[in-house]
Order: sequence, then C-alpha cells, then structure tokens
Amino acid sequence: MASIPGFWAVVPAGGAGTRLWPLSRAAHPKFLLDLTGTGRTLLQGTVDRLTPLTDERVLVVTGTAHADAVRAQLPGLLSDQVLAEPSPRDSMAAIGLAAAVVERRDPEAVIGSFAADHLIPDAGAFADVIREAAEVAHDGHLVTIGIEPTSPATGFGYIRTGEPLPRARTARRVLQFVEKPDAELAARYVASGEYRWNAGMFVVRAALLLDLLERWHPDLARGLREVAADPSRLADVWPGLTRIAIDHAVAEPAADAGRVVVVPASFGWDDVGDFGSLATLLPPDDGAVDLRVLGDRADVTSLDTSGLVVAAGGRRVAVVGLDDVVVVDTPDAVLVTTRARAQDVKGVVDELTASGRGDLV
Amino acid sequence: MASIPGFWAVVPAGGAGTRLWPLSRAAHPKFLLDLTGTGRTLLQGTVDRLTPLTDERVLVVTGTAHADAVRAQLPGLLSDQVLAEPSPRDSMAAIGLAAAVVERRDPEAVIGSFAADHLIPDAGAFADVIREAAEVAHDGHLVTIGIEPTSPATGFGYIRTGEPLPRARTARRVLQFVEKPDAELAARYVASGEYRWNAGMFVVRAALLLDLLERWHPDLARGLREVAADPSRLADVWPGLTRIAIDHAVAEPAADAGRVVVVPASFGWDDVGDFGSLATLLPPDDGAVDLRVLGDRADVTSLDTSGLVVAAGGRRVAVVGLDDVVVVDTPDAVLVTTRARAQDVKGVVDELTASGRGDLV
Repeated sequence: MASIPGFWAVVPAGGAGTRLWPLSRAAHPKFLLDLTGTGRTLLQGTVDRLTPLTDERVLVVTGTAHADAVRAQLPGLLSDQVLAEPSPRDSMAAIGLAAAVVERRDPEAVIGSFAADHLIPDAGAFADVIREAAEVAHDGHLVTIGIEPTSPATGFGYIRTGEPLPRARTARRVLQFVEKPDAELAARYVASGEYRWNAGMFVVRAALLLDLLERWHPDLARGLREVAADPSRLADVWPGLTRIAIDHAVAEPAADAGRVVVVPASFGWDDVGDFGSLATLLPPDDGAVDLRVLGDRADVTSLDTSGLVVAAGGRRVAVVGLDDVVVVDTPDAVLVTTRARAQDVKGVVDELTASGRGDLV
Repeated sequence: MASIPGFWAVVPAGGAGTRLWPLSRAAHPKFLLDLTGTGRTLLQGTVDRLTPLTDERVLVVTGTAHADAVRAQLPGLLSDQVLAEPSPRDSMAAIGLAAAVVERRDPEAVIGSFAADHLIPDAGAFADVIREAAEVAHDGHLVTIGIEPTSPATGFGYIRTGEPLPRARTARRVLQFVEKPDAELAARYVASGEYRWNAGMFVVRAALLLDLLERWHPDLARGLREVAADPSRLADVWPGLTRIAIDHAVAEPAADAGRVVVVPASFGWDDVGDFGSLATLLPPDDGAVDLRVLGDRADVTSLDTSGLVVAAGGRRVAVVGLDDVVVVDTPDAVLVTTRARAQDVKGVVDELTASGRGDLV
C-alpha cells in the first residue's frame, strides 16, 4: 500500500471512556485497552491503520498523565511524535497543536485527525476513503468522513450532505452538521438517505485548519502557532487557551460558510461507546446461546446466558440464566448490568466520584 | 430460661451447601458462614439456640476436615463435644454415633437432633416447641417437629399428621412422611391443613433411637454402640457402616409402625437452601427498590436494582438496572444469576467439578 505524499495523521488520545467502567479508568482509559481480544489496543489499532498511509508521519496528542503509557504502547514512534498536553483543553487545542507542528515542518502538508479509541476493522476500505479525502483536502477543502448509517443511532451527530463536488469521485458538499438527534429524528435522517454519521474525522491542510481557526478564534490559533514555533512556551501559553471542540470552533462555522466537504464511507466503524456496542464487536462464543467473552474463556462458566462477559479479574466468573447481561470483572471492581442499560454505567462513575471513591474511577 | 433435665442436643454439621456457591465451598461450607450479617454463623446460631435448653449438653458431629473450624467457632464446647467422622456416612451414622455416646452417659437421656445450617430467628418459640417435644419423647415416642407451611414449597418433604396424642398439649400422630412433592401436590398438601414441612428435626430417647435402628439396621446400631463403648474402635468400624439417612433408616419405618409423633411449630424456619431464600432473610436496603445486601453496604453501588448482592470479595460491586438479580462476589469467584434461577447454581458447581476445577468448589 503506497503512502499518501505530504499526509500526516494526528491522533488525539483522550477521553475517559466512562461508560466502559470498570475496564476503562481515568488512569488507564479506553484507548489504552485491547477491547477486541486481538492483542492490540484501540490506540495501537489506530496507529497500525495509519502508519502505511503516512510513512510513519503520525503525531499522537495526549495528556501528560498518559504520555508514558502511549509511548510504551507505540515503541515505533519517536519521542517528538507524542505531544503531551499539560492540561485538558478539548479537541481544538489538541488537534490544532499538532496542525501547527506539522505546518512548520511542511507548509503544504495535509493532516487527518482520527480518534485513538474507535474501531475500523477494514483497514483497506479505510485507506481508500482517506486517500480521496486527502486529495480533496489538498485542493483546499475541510473534509470530513461520513459513515453510512446502519441504524438510526442517537449516540452520534449526523452530517447533512449536499451536491456532489465537481470532478470528485464521491465527495459531496456538507450542508450542515447536526447534533445527536432523538430516536424519531434519527429515523427520519436515515430514511432520507441524505444524512451520514459524523465519526469526528477531519482531513484538511494544516495551514488551512489554522487559518480557519484564526478567523473565528484568533487567540487560540496564535497561541498554538506560538507553541509550535517555540515549544518552551508550552507551559506558559497552554493554560490560557480556549477550551472548545473542533466541531464548534471550526467545522460548524466552516460548513455554514460552504467550506466543508464529506467523503462518504461504508466501512464498518464503531466508537465502542459502551458495553452494549462492545458485545456486538466480539465473535460469538462457541456453544453458548449468544454470549460474547472478552478475556480468557476458560475463566467463564455460563448456563443459559446471553450477553457479554469481560473476564479481566483473573477470577472465575459464573453466570446462570440471564439474557443480554453484561458482567465485567476486574481486580478491584465488578459491574453487572444489561446491554440495554449499558449507557447508564456512567451513573456508577458519577456516584463513585460524588461519594469520595474517585480512586475507583 | 430453664434447661430441660436430661436433654441433649445433637448438631450434625455437614453438607456442602452447593447452591450457595461461591460463598459456600467444600472446605468452608454453609454451616460455617454468617449468612445474616449478625456476626454469628449458622452453626453458632444453632448452638446459641440450644445451649440454654441443655445446660451446654451439646454434641456437634462433623467431618474430620471441619472439626478444627467447628471447635474454633465454638470455644465454649469441650473437646469431646465435637465428634469427628472419619468419612461421610450420612445422617443416621452421624446422629446415631452421638446417640450412642449420650446413651452411655445417661441411659434415660432424650436427644434432639438439629441441623447446623438452618435459621430459626425466634429462639423463645423454638424452645417452647422443643420443651413439649422432649416431654413427649421422654414417654417413649420418636418425635419430629412439623413446621407450619407458609407456601406450597417443593423443596421440602412433608409430614402428614393424624389424631392428637392423648394428654399432649399439641402433639399429634404422624401418619406418613412424604417426599418432596411437585407444585400441584404441594398446593393440595397445604390447602388440606393436614400437612406440615419436615424440617429434619428429631427428638427421641437416645436408647430408643438405637433400639429402633437395631430393629431395621442391626449392624449399624451395633457398630455405633461399639464405637461409643470404645472410641479407639472408630477408625476400624466407621468405614463399614451403612450409608443411610435417618429418615429412611428409622423415621419412615417407625412412622409406618405408628411410633412417630409430631409437635407442630409455627416459628419461622428456613434451611437457606439457595440465594433466592437468602434474599428474603436479609433486611431490605435503605433507599433501594428492594435490594438486600450481605456484607459491607459501602462496597455496593446500585442503580434501579432489586435482588441480592453479597459483597464478600473486598471489592466494589456495581449493579445497574436488573430486577431480582443475585450477585455474589468472593475473592476468587463471582456469581451472577437471578432469584428464580438460584437453584441452578448447583449446575455451576457440577460443571466446575467435571472440568477439573474442583479447587474452586
């Protein structure tokens, strides 16, 4: 597979993955976990997918607390390929810092930003889409990837697509980014054929991203370029940067200004948002009704049970007579819920935090 | 409370409590557990209940593997009050050995046999019933206790009662012991008013029990009396003794011969047969829908959950959105099931044993 000339991958590695507690913890979040039993973590899988497209031009942006773990998981990266944020300043600052670093090395470079904790099993189909996105981005567009919806999901934002872009293979104009819809609206979006899931991927020339940011948030753009020019300024500048998501800072206003393009994608994509979706990503268990197991199957005894068992505690897990159950065993905490209630695991984390047990979070 | 002159309590402490796995293990069975959070184990509770009735004339019969644990839990007992069986020979040998030991100390003594792993919260009501039973037994009857059924349970045998015994306060003839019925038959038993639950308690003169045994199983009776006369014969004689339950060996044939009497009892009684029944024996949790917790409530986080959580692993247990669930956390195994499927926990133990994981059983 040939790399894309002048293309850099930016991987923001953040987010606690609260809904995957107790597997995901603040100190060891979702992107550091192997959630598919393949032996590669979500972060490693993301970088594996991007390395051939970039000839190893990959930058990972993460919190200082996780920089050592990220470097340990990615021994192929040089030290300056992992950018450590002194404090969380949301996705615009993280991606923008990487863009500013890339811009100094290659003013014509195109960057693609891809979250460290998503799953895309078909690396080949992903590469085809990114290749087109990089071409379109090179021509001066802010490009996003629009995933073909396989259900009227309410957990994602949607992209409303417009006319095909002249001379492009599949790219179309973006009319609008829309927030997570309710179930009725999501069904209408999917039925219309005009909407796609927003997977939060952006492909754009590094300099254009910063120039667009300069238009709407000039202080933020200047701060990021200042740090890229003189990394010793990081500790002084960073705390003053505006906390804002890239969607609000640039993507939405740029869409309103007609500057955003979408490349449609039909590859499988999952943000592994909770244990309910994790269950669908694992292979079915031999013999059992429909039980998925992450961890050592030999640690699990099940009778008449469907759902998901995560055996990560080194202990015996026995489940009898429950449908669509979720059991997650770890050394210091065990979670029991159902696939339908998997989103509410966040409530457990909230309650632990509120009751002074932040050590378990 | 006055003791009953010449009355001895015999407490067979055996049985694995398989349906309470992973709390109950072969090496640490049900009778050694505090299942009510009171700080006293089932064995201790049983002896606590019997001590005032007997002036400490209590004999516990248990396997050699558990003799040390029994003595440790009952420091008030003298060493010769714990009889250790070299191997399991079922309830007739266990109770019969104690009867033979008592018979030698007091040929007129009445013994009462009470399992070490049942719960009877009202010790006063229990004492009243046993007092009458001991009087009737002194007159030469084999006396059993008939618990007033509170539901058409299918997990117990039943006692069919006959005419009142002349001059007795409440005792009646036993017409028949009947095996565990199916649900339809159990409902008919309860509706008739003629049947009572067989709690496996027997009150009888020690010498009469052995004389009745002599009639139907002469070798067994002789062997037990031989060991009582010369304890050094235990290791030689014990392995040859017939394995048989006291119900089949003596109680059923004696009932057919018109020799058995029942004292009705209306005190609360539970054999804590599985986690479903354990849930009903614990106090409801403050605030939660109907969640019972055994262990440290502070270890449990629950949202919209009813059922039972046993927090015995020293870890956080979080449960979200399950009704009538059973979660049992221990240091090396966690069980998840429902109250309705609690009986099927035995299947887990069977599977672990069959798959060579007897170390977990």
